[in-house]
Amino acid sequence: MNDPTGHLDLENWSCPLPLRDYPTIVMGHGGGGRLSAELIEHLFLPAFSGTVNDIPLNQLGDAAVLEAGGARLAFSTDSYVVRPRFFPGGNIGDLAVNGTINDVSMTGARPFALSVGMVLEEGMRIDELGVIAEAMGAAARRAGVSIVTGDTKVVDAGNGDGVYINTAGIGLIPAGIDLGPHRVRPGDAIIVSGAIGMHGIAVMSVREGLEFGSEIVTDSAPLNGLVDSLLAAGIEVHMMRDPTRGGVAATLNEIAKTSGTGMRIVERDVPVPDDVRAACGFLGLDPLYVANEGKLVAFVAAHDTERALDIMRAHEFGSGATLIGHVVEEHPGVVVAKTGIGGTRVVDLPLAEQLPRIC
Amino acid sequence: MNDPTGHLDLENWSCPLPLRDYPTIVMGHGGGGRLSAELIEHLFLPAFSGTVNDIPLNQLGDAAVLEAGGARLAFSTDSYVVRPRFFPGGNIGDLAVNGTINDVSMTGARPFALSVGMVLEEGMRIDELGVIAEAMGAAARRAGVSIVTGDTKVVDAGNGDGVYINTAGIGLIPAGIDLGPHRVRPGDAIIVSGAIGMHGIAVMSVREGLEFGSEIVTDSAPLNGLVDSLLAAGIEVHMMRDPTRGGVAATLNEIAKTSGTGMRIVERDVPVPDDVRAACGFLGLDPLYVANEGKLVAFVAAHDTERALDIMRAHEFGSGATLIGHVVEEHPGVVVAKTGIGGTRVVDLPLAEQLPRIC
Repeated sequence: MNDPTGHLDLENWSCPLPLRDYPTIVMGHGGGGRLSAELIEHLFLPAFSGTVNDIPLNQLGDAAVLEAGGARLAFSTDSYVVRPRFFPGGNIGDLAVNGTINDVSMTGARPFALSVGMVLEEGMRIDELGVIAEAMGAAARRAGVSIVTGDTKVVDAGNGDGVYINTAGIGLIPAGIDLGPHRVRPGDAIIVSGAIGMHGIAVMSVREGLEFGSEIVTDSAPLNGLVDSLLAAGIEVHMMRDPTRGGVAATLNEIAKTSGTGMRIVERDVPVPDDVRAACGFLGLDPLYVANEGKLVAFVAAHDTERALDIMRAHEFGSGATLIGHVVEEHPGVVVAKTGIGGTRVVDLPLAEQLPRIC
Repeated sequence: MNDPTGHLDLENWSCPLPLRDYPTIVMGHGGGGRLSAELIEHLFLPAFSGTVNDIPLNQLGDAAVLEAGGARLAFSTDSYVVRPRFFPGGNIGDLAVNGTINDVSMTGARPFALSVGMVLEEGMRIDELGVIAEAMGAAARRAGVSIVTGDTKVVDAGNGDGVYINTAGIGLIPAGIDLGPHRVRPGDAIIVSGAIGMHGIAVMSVREGLEFGSEIVTDSAPLNGLVDSLLAAGIEVHMMRDPTRGGVAATLNEIAKTSGTGMRIVERDVPVPDDVRAACGFLGLDPLYVANEGKLVAFVAAHDTERALDIMRAHEFGSGATLIGHVVEEHPGVVVAKTGIGGTRVVDLPLAEQLPRIC
């Protein structure tokens, strides 16, 4: 690398455990699993702590909730490095728009503004960039969100991979809405808004040149409308999360840990399309760990379960909504699945995403 | 590249002029000069247009101004790909924090929250990442701004350059503050807050392994406090901009064009430190085009010129504040400099940044 050692003073920084096991960055540090969590907890959080203004330092993977001038805002960011850039049903552009819309929406906020930061590699085709940009515009228009500011940088050939896109988004949280792990409690219904595993398998199929009979397309979609319809109906939603990297398994594990509750799901109730299940079998993947880009997991007060399911099923992006389990008092921090053969198994947080560069 | 041609339909996208001159991305598309402007005007703006919510599509290089729940917000983003990552006086981490703080501040907003999106390259040293993250935290604390949310992605070795950092920032615009090109008018004083050219030369010196006698360090600094002090004193500021990529020359050109005014500066009044001038001579650069990361150009009502200078000079980051020229009615859209030998020359918008990957 080009760093002048004369200006690099690393002696004042000592690598905390357990990061010492990995003196350099490995793919898993970006995978949304345990390695990612360690990097956040032991490197980023200590470094960023003590920044002022009374904004509680967030978990850095979710949207942050902020107060500004009397308004309550949600703010989130995501970088997209998916490979390949085009896959069945979408490309890196609409993925980058939908992904940040969804992160903001999970707080209950109505996203209204996005920023776009592009890192382009020298030599990328301008017409391909044009198609990606148009996909971004189309996705934003469909979701009713504006792209309001941006930045473009170019790196020399060999130092990028065509285009990396960062989007950040702001949403306005309606009065009275307060969602989060602090509201999750035993008895809550765990509802997933539809079929899982589609995005990860769609990307994987092109990357590996696999054919699974029918083409599996990404589920990439904006979820702000679905969230709006739940909240507008007064459904007692306690928390929502979009199960992207690490899939439903990582999402449930994180929420179990931060809320201090246990989760129990019924494996055969989890909606996995036949072709996704077949592809997962072929690839040796567990669909619970495969990324989704147009699904949410909602924790809903038990008494509102049926109404929530009805409202979600009436929505374009919630037609496959399904109750997959409940929050329990037992085994706080642990997710267990009732298996098809009548037993139970622990659904652990993965060490890393099974599929690198899926978003 | 890995794109499956089967999923890439480029036929519906036709490359507009003048982008056709460059069928692929070149370094200059990220340089903040004419090539960057063409990409924004002819590719991104058409693609993103028509996104809803009545937010006027911004110039995509500045902070956007938004209304939300009664609050007026500024929102900006920047990606940082500077090479090398460590340079005299700073590194990519504090640069990424200061840069977005400054973009937000130029609207007159008080920045309060930042997001951080990291694209890490497999194989990057964890301790180096630690030093960069700590520099980000320190810069945020110094400026009184919080890092509230983030995201980390990892790309395979050979598809990155250690670390690329995106920061997005939100600020709150105080009541009654309205800055922008629509307020710039003939007679306005053009004030630069201090010595120019330092950041670009500091980076260049390490990249090229040059020695210029004394070490030139980056001017990277947060300007929110300086802006606050001007506005709190009631100075009639019409517009501010931080002259980063493309330097003071690009900044003045952009504002001349968007405000429909002419600019006249006096070359010998522009504060260029001797060592920067010597380095520029050696490298064949014009200091007016070299990037700054801790300076602002302010357009101030003529009657407030002396007060503005006094207030800026009393501030840590404005001690070298200097009047460099005035806005004029003549030659709208054009910047001219009175040269040392009594003539004048046109200061044009550069085609591209003279120095790639400077931020």
